[in-house]
Amino acid sequence: MQHATPQITNIVELLNAGNTAAVADLFAEAHPADIADALEQLTPANRPAAWEHIPEDEKGEVLAELNEGVFRDLAEELDNKELVNAIKVLDIDELADLIPDLPETLLADVLFEVDTQTRANLGEVLSYPEDSAGGLMNLDTVTVRDNISLDVVLHYLRLRSDLPDHTDAIYLVDRQNKLTGILPITSLITQAGGNPASQHIIEAPVIFQCLDDEEEVAKAFADYDLISAPVVDENQVLLGRITIDDVVDVIREQAEHDIMAAAGLKEEEDIFAPVAKTSRNRTVWLAVNLVTALLGSWVIGQFEGSIQQLVALAVLMPIVASMGGNAGTQTLTVVIRGMSLGTISRGNMMTVLKKETMVGVLNGIIWAVVIAVIAALWYQNLNLGLVIAAAMIANLVMGAIAGVCIPIFLDKMNIDPALAGGVALTTVTDVVGYFSVLGLATLLLL
Amino acid sequence: MQHATPQITNIVELLNAGNTAAVADLFAEAHPADIADALEQLTPANRPAAWEHIPEDEKGEVLAELNEGVFRDLAEELDNKELVNAIKVLDIDELADLIPDLPETLLADVLFEVDTQTRANLGEVLSYPEDSAGGLMNLDTVTVRDNISLDVVLHYLRLRSDLPDHTDAIYLVDRQNKLTGILPITSLITQAGGNPASQHIIEAPVIFQCLDDEEEVAKAFADYDLISAPVVDENQVLLGRITIDDVVDVIREQAEHDIMAAAGLKEEEDIFAPVAKTSRNRTVWLAVNLVTALLGSWVIGQFEGSIQQLVALAVLMPIVASMGGNAGTQTLTVVIRGMSLGTISRGNMMTVLKKETMVGVLNGIIWAVVIAVIAALWYQNLNLGLVIAAAMIANLVMGAIAGVCIPIFLDKMNIDPALAGGVALTTVTDVVGYFSVLGLATLLLL
Repeated sequence: MQHATPQITNIVELLNAGNTAAVADLFAEAHPADIADALEQLTPANRPAAWEHIPEDEKGEVLAELNEGVFRDLAEELDNKELVNAIKVLDIDELADLIPDLPETLLADVLFEVDTQTRANLGEVLSYPEDSAGGLMNLDTVTVRDNISLDVVLHYLRLRSDLPDHTDAIYLVDRQNKLTGILPITSLITQAGGNPASQHIIEAPVIFQCLDDEEEVAKAFADYDLISAPVVDENQVLLGRITIDDVVDVIREQAEHDIMAAAGLKEEEDIFAPVAKTSRNRTVWLAVNLVTALLGSWVIGQFEGSIQQLVALAVLMPIVASMGGNAGTQTLTVVIRGMSLGTISRGNMMTVLKKETMVGVLNGIIWAVVIAVIAALWYQNLNLGLVIAAAMIANLVMGAIAGVCIPIFLDKMNIDPALAGGVALTTVTDVVGYFSVLGLATLLLL
Repeated sequence: MQHATPQITNIVELLNAGNTAAVADLFAEAHPADIADALEQLTPANRPAAWEHIPEDEKGEVLAELNEGVFRDLAEELDNKELVNAIKVLDIDELADLIPDLPETLLADVLFEVDTQTRANLGEVLSYPEDSAGGLMNLDTVTVRDNISLDVVLHYLRLRSDLPDHTDAIYLVDRQNKLTGILPITSLITQAGGNPASQHIIEAPVIFQCLDDEEEVAKAFADYDLISAPVVDENQVLLGRITIDDVVDVIREQAEHDIMAAAGLKEEEDIFAPVAKTSRNRTVWLAVNLVTALLGSWVIGQFEGSIQQLVALAVLMPIVASMGGNAGTQTLTVVIRGMSLGTISRGNMMTVLKKETMVGVLNGIIWAVVIAVIAALWYQNLNLGLVIAAAMIANLVMGAIAGVCIPIFLDKMNIDPALAGGVALTTVTDVVGYFSVLGLATLLLL
């Protein structure tokens, strides 16, 4: 890969060696995204020192590229005036992205510093939820009236002499600024100029309403291979446009969220945050886990007498709990992905439940036979093997049912299944696993 | 959201009601991506029937949009001749995507049916690894010689009268087809035509080598907000270009892979696959899990005498194992993400290890106090509380160390940390958790 800008590799060593001139030289040539990456790789203590050497006119872009957690942390360390100067030059959509992460006093300063037009635009974008099409859009649409010729359009664009990034289409609007069509800029190049613009309009593959959810937006961009798409209000009045670069960020953040949430982490987790802060961030998750673990232990506690009589139960019960948890997590993962990709919907949910339950039964039988043989041989006790086998089937079936029902239930309750699904599932499979092993053994063996 | 094409909602009911005309009407107007989504929501038994009603000239695009697992399954059901006809009209990059999933006989048929030029192009793209820049590129670059004027470029493009999708730049090449610059097509619109093209070239933010890894490509597209980027060989000869639509697919597949792999699933898992097939697909994962669970049970088995003497150990030991597993998984997740995003590298790995170990110590102490109080009150046994507390600290520290070291080790061994990391980690925390509770209790209490 050949980069137009230098890649930043050994900045820690340069900083430690006090070679600030070299750092400044590197930053002077580097792309803001690469500078942001470099800052993220530093410990919080080193970041303000590195920040000093970023060229003034790049500082805003670097802030816009930073991981949220790192940004918030750095913002606390820096002088307000300096931050405001860096931020105020950003584009509306970048400003709108940063603003939710700003401390209130800083926010007031930024709003005071930007010009009236920017403040009005910002007010408009911020009036939509952050995760909606309105919150995601830019206001830099290039519009022309729909009754002019391509030549006039071209003349107008030459006068502008510059087009916003990611402009693959000009929007045609009527007197009321209602969107009437889109004109791909490739038509301006490949078609004869005398034709009226309206002859070359194409129907927009998709037009977003300002309140559409960003996940729908991302799916539409991916499905229809879009570069940009218009956003309108309920009267078809053009409000702005969404561009693929922002959608790519949404897709990456969504993926990051799903992966991090499964371990109870926030996607903006800063890996170099101080120990105390990290420990605090992870406390709630571990507390929830402790409560669920105590629930499992309470179940075991009800059968202390049985365990004392047949200590093999204590040895074998974690296997049943663990197999149920793993099989159930497979179902859970498939169902959560299916729901978020739209493959699973109300119409085919029963099919999924039936199928996964059958998979649970089949897998239950397979692993019941395996564990029965192992347990019977280990303890020379055929009946013990049969009890563990029955518990295994019960727990794998339960895991499958819970794997389908838990995300559906959480979704209905508006709780993020990616966050809570795993804990809820393993709580079920632990409790059912311990209870079925110990309960069946108490009933049948003792 | 307003779609230019109708959305497909109730196709199962239409098929079940035998209303094939309505299905055909829907498909005739729908976007191939939406038809592919609809097929994925059907059971395998229903898919061939739905396939019949897809317009002939859309069938190839629909296949290209399908989830790999669903595609392979459907390909088995359909007539070879029909498949070949559908596939042979696709673009090179779509063909190159499908080919690794084709059965061999079908592949031979496809290669026989396409024209010589396509076969040669396909040979070129397929000569690169699927997950490399070469495997990802299209060959539809628009190139001009670097010494001509913008007017001549414009004239040439008017003659072509059409540009490939996602063309945001024309590539300038010399006599040897070496890339000398890129010309944004917006310059063609906004600049005066008499200027030589070379006056408006911009430096490409990034030029890919054919063997660059697709993850690097995805990161560069996201960092530098690219629409397309050139791919060259080691002599700077232009080979093709990568476009954002394919990169979006890479980003989505990568995210899908990471989420599915954590549960031992393939990203192309078809949720409606037959029960036996699904059960078979999940067997290896459950077998691995059984072996690791048996390892934990073996450790418990070494202390049967201790459990019989103090049954509370069987009740409390899963809590220590589970807390270690959860805390360790948090570290593991952060480290795997950091490694794949490039935040963690050789230079700062020791910092991460030190920090996470300290988090493990701090969390260990916090939860040791909590569990000590609970255990001591539950069993009215202060010494038992102290033993469990010591085991908790040991296991949380171990979980943190394993969470950092396991992904580093797996990565060195070329094993996907997203796939194997979780199992490896919980094996460690289960074994250490059980061993530390039972071992310490045996030493100190009995």
